[in-house]
Amino acid sequence: MTHPLLEKHRATLEGALNAIATRGYWSAYNEMPSPKAYGETAPDDGKKAFEAHLGKAFELGQPGQSGWAGGEQSPYGIDIGTTYPVCDIEALIAAGETAMRGWQKAGADGRAGICLEILDRLNKQSFELAHAVMMTTGQGWMMAFQAGAPHAQDRGLEAVAYAWREQRFVPHETVWEKPQGKNPPLVMKKHFELVGRGVGVVVGCGTFPTWNTYPGLFAALSTGNAVIVKPHSNAILPAAITVRTIRAVLAENGIDPNLVTLAVAGRAETQKLVTHAKVKSVDFTGGNVFGQWLIDNCRQAQVYAELAGVNNIVIDSTDAYKRMLGNLAFTLSLYSGQMCTTSQAILVPAGGIDTEDGHKSFDDVCADLGKAVTGFLSKPEVAHAVLGAIQSSDTLQRIEEAASGKYGTVVLAPQKLENPDFPKAEVRTPVLLACDAGEEAKYMEERFGPISFIVKVADTAAAIALSERIVATHGALTAGVYSTKPEVIEAMTEATWRSKVALSINLTGGVFVNQSAAYSDYHGTGGNPAANASYSDSAFVANRFRVVQRRYHV
Amino acid sequence: MTHPLLEKHRATLEGALNAIATRGYWSAYNEMPSPKAYGETAPDDGKKAFEAHLGKAFELGQPGQSGWAGGEQSPYGIDIGTTYPVCDIEALIAAGETAMRGWQKAGADGRAGICLEILDRLNKQSFELAHAVMMTTGQGWMMAFQAGAPHAQDRGLEAVAYAWREQRFVPHETVWEKPQGKNPPLVMKKHFELVGRGVGVVVGCGTFPTWNTYPGLFAALSTGNAVIVKPHSNAILPAAITVRTIRAVLAENGIDPNLVTLAVAGRAETQKLVTHAKVKSVDFTGGNVFGQWLIDNCRQAQVYAELAGVNNIVIDSTDAYKRMLGNLAFTLSLYSGQMCTTSQAILVPAGGIDTEDGHKSFDDVCADLGKAVTGFLSKPEVAHAVLGAIQSSDTLQRIEEAASGKYGTVVLAPQKLENPDFPKAEVRTPVLLACDAGEEAKYMEERFGPISFIVKVADTAAAIALSERIVATHGALTAGVYSTKPEVIEAMTEATWRSKVALSINLTGGVFVNQSAAYSDYHGTGGNPAANASYSDSAFVANRFRVVQRRYHV
Repeated sequence: MTHPLLEKHRATLEGALNAIATRGYWSAYNEMPSPKAYGETAPDDGKKAFEAHLGKAFELGQPGQSGWAGGEQSPYGIDIGTTYPVCDIEALIAAGETAMRGWQKAGADGRAGICLEILDRLNKQSFELAHAVMMTTGQGWMMAFQAGAPHAQDRGLEAVAYAWREQRFVPHETVWEKPQGKNPPLVMKKHFELVGRGVGVVVGCGTFPTWNTYPGLFAALSTGNAVIVKPHSNAILPAAITVRTIRAVLAENGIDPNLVTLAVAGRAETQKLVTHAKVKSVDFTGGNVFGQWLIDNCRQAQVYAELAGVNNIVIDSTDAYKRMLGNLAFTLSLYSGQMCTTSQAILVPAGGIDTEDGHKSFDDVCADLGKAVTGFLSKPEVAHAVLGAIQSSDTLQRIEEAASGKYGTVVLAPQKLENPDFPKAEVRTPVLLACDAGEEAKYMEERFGPISFIVKVADTAAAIALSERIVATHGALTAGVYSTKPEVIEAMTEATWRSKVALSINLTGGVFVNQSAAYSDYHGTGGNPAANASYSDSAFVANRFRVVQRRYHV
Repeated sequence: MTHPLLEKHRATLEGALNAIATRGYWSAYNEMPSPKAYGETAPDDGKKAFEAHLGKAFELGQPGQSGWAGGEQSPYGIDIGTTYPVCDIEALIAAGETAMRGWQKAGADGRAGICLEILDRLNKQSFELAHAVMMTTGQGWMMAFQAGAPHAQDRGLEAVAYAWREQRFVPHETVWEKPQGKNPPLVMKKHFELVGRGVGVVVGCGTFPTWNTYPGLFAALSTGNAVIVKPHSNAILPAAITVRTIRAVLAENGIDPNLVTLAVAGRAETQKLVTHAKVKSVDFTGGNVFGQWLIDNCRQAQVYAELAGVNNIVIDSTDAYKRMLGNLAFTLSLYSGQMCTTSQAILVPAGGIDTEDGHKSFDDVCADLGKAVTGFLSKPEVAHAVLGAIQSSDTLQRIEEAASGKYGTVVLAPQKLENPDFPKAEVRTPVLLACDAGEEAKYMEERFGPISFIVKVADTAAAIALSERIVATHGALTAGVYSTKPEVIEAMTEATWRSKVALSINLTGGVFVNQSAAYSDYHGTGGNPAANASYSDSAFVANRFRVVQRRYHV
């Protein structure tokens, strides 16, 4: 009954199943962009494959095509000029529904096997995907490679593993035999069919076009659904490459490739798509306005949404002041803070904090964190590798506003850097602002980009209470605490149980609050306003398929 | 780490886990209301315990009590006269939230152990509960015992088993160790805390006050949530007995009993309760109007709803005509069709059907089914045991309307029977109507009660297409087909995959389309308008808790 591709990739699936059960470190896909890992010619081949897309029409062979569209603007200032098929939404939905029949027949094993093959093929395209991610999002090369390719593939595999596990709990059939005392038993044969809910739509974001798309894409796909990928208008290429590979693997395995299609669509067309009666799930990563619109309007669908939040860190005390500052400096700088996990509000007691280096006043902490950021970014090659480029003009404008003092006292002003490799790239160093806890309008909404606040709070207890309130009311994907006192860590831990946010404690080494590792770290809890779902857990997959039974006397 | 009550009931939990994995026959609780199974004095003790509630105030010791309310009218015409505490909703919610802290600390094992103990204690009260169910709902004694007590307890245990399985997938803690080439590995200790989403409300129905309440109640409870049970205004007693027992077991085990409370509330108060910001899940069984209101308005909560539908059966042909008619007659008669699973529309080709007894015209089928019902109910003791009494005046009125010919040609008129044991009981035999497939207004909405339609359809293919459309647009919990032709059964099977409804094929023996057995039959698929969730599956439990992690360097 099992599928040859499941056998081929069984060790990978079993590795993932073990990893989600133990939540230790594991990865199926090498995160080093090295020829040793990916083959001598892989870096060059990938770069050429990426360059071959530039200025060209990206053929996908989808139904209902009416024209071509493109217009991605690279934050690095290169010309992309790729165009993509524009297809009638009704045609994509109808074709997806039709394709679901054969996909249902493939069963959970067949679907898992084919998804594993897709991920393996995407992994072989990691350099091509990494260039596409880097040039559309402005990420630095290393992040674009890691988050854009192997880490995204890991998150996709994670969803496949959860989906397979849940589907495999349902037996194909059973004999139900109920004793009737001295009479013959009642005997029924029963069959249980796994059926996808219907066409799924995955709406991507502009900053992580694969990492935030693959979980929903592979969760919906491996549970038996057709998927229409609606990428952000400025990060289409990584999605298009992904969709083309998926379609190729599907076709090779006798599955109608229209099971997975790309929808290049504006806002109005997207709204039509996601509210379509035949669309049964919507995965979304992005801002609160459209996210809330989806939740309010897509009543015919399950909506899995990752929205904005106000990530925060409470600093009470530390015995590793320099390393704490270094850890924070990296977090605030990485991809210029354009991550949904970057800390925005750093809550520091008005009376300052105790450190192994003596007491530091609130102003000391502000100044020292500013210096740590400046020091960390002092070498241009480090700065460019870490910062990347600013993805959108909205973010550039927010940085300017922050620099003007509009949101708080400027502790560290942003600098515009010139990237010698990409003269047109918009590069900015982080802005640090200081404000009082009472000035909530300043810091208590997401200001996406390299803009962070050091918020002066009465004391540690007030900081913990504020953190809890921020998370409960505005949401957060990450929270942190620095303290040498067990009772403070315990109080913060209990606050995060109530507000439901993942907590990083005393990070001073090579792990950062804004990083979440597949199979081990839940990305989002799904329990606060920043996200109603988590990557990944059973709830992320279990409601994407239904069981339809039939029974008869034997 | 495990809990003594989990050890005490481990065999029961393991039985349930095995049953949901294999979906064969299994039950934890004896369905025979016999002294042999429940103890020599159990029937008498249970009856006395029930009678002791009549005309009394039912003390629960809940917070915020402002008075007493009652007013249940027995369909059997006895005087109930029990009153129940009326409590301030804000007080119940606040007390539930407070109680959740200790419940969280109990962990998945502790919660499962205590839930298993609760179910065991409820099982020992089966006779008391059965009398309460019978007298509030109008069910016959045997159904009241089975569905009201052991079968309801099985559905509760089923939810506990799913919840335990999903929660146990999440390890308490892990060490995450990521190799760093020649450098020392990155090592993080991580803890994973299971946290309930928040206060759950379970809104019960008037016909199955335990069977339809226990799944949501035990799913929410065992995943770490407080639960407020809001029973139907005419079936409070079974819920009150349940809540009292739960509170007693909680208190015995050091858990704040206010974790589970009873809310006796009218419509406006209920609406306030279910839309309260602190209420995070709502389980509901009942009509479409209030169900849709819940889905539209309880935006702060997960809503698990079982609503109305139009259950239907396609009759193409049979090789067991008499037994088919006998099976249908039982289904239509049981509890006077007041089940969410009773067939309402029986789709028969205009040209009639082939049987082992020769061809039967459409009119033959109508007449023969009418005779089968009449014959089945010809003995008064059988009739009363099977029919029970009519639960609501709305249903009585619908029966009258149906008898008047308003909804179709009367094939079998309802009869009013006198129950010698309960002279005030409202007893009616089923109404059978005939109409054409085109007369959709007549049969294509739920007419709750003993009202069924034999619908004349062009042919079998049209009947299957109509069945699919009914399910997809109006919903259904059950569908059936009778045919001797494999291709018809296959076509019907595929139709039910698309419309997502459970299918019973050629039922002629001691299993009926309106019955669903815990651990084996999914009650509802959650994939058509009759219900957005199923009893039970992973999706029914997995999103009722969240995982909150914390991590630090080692």
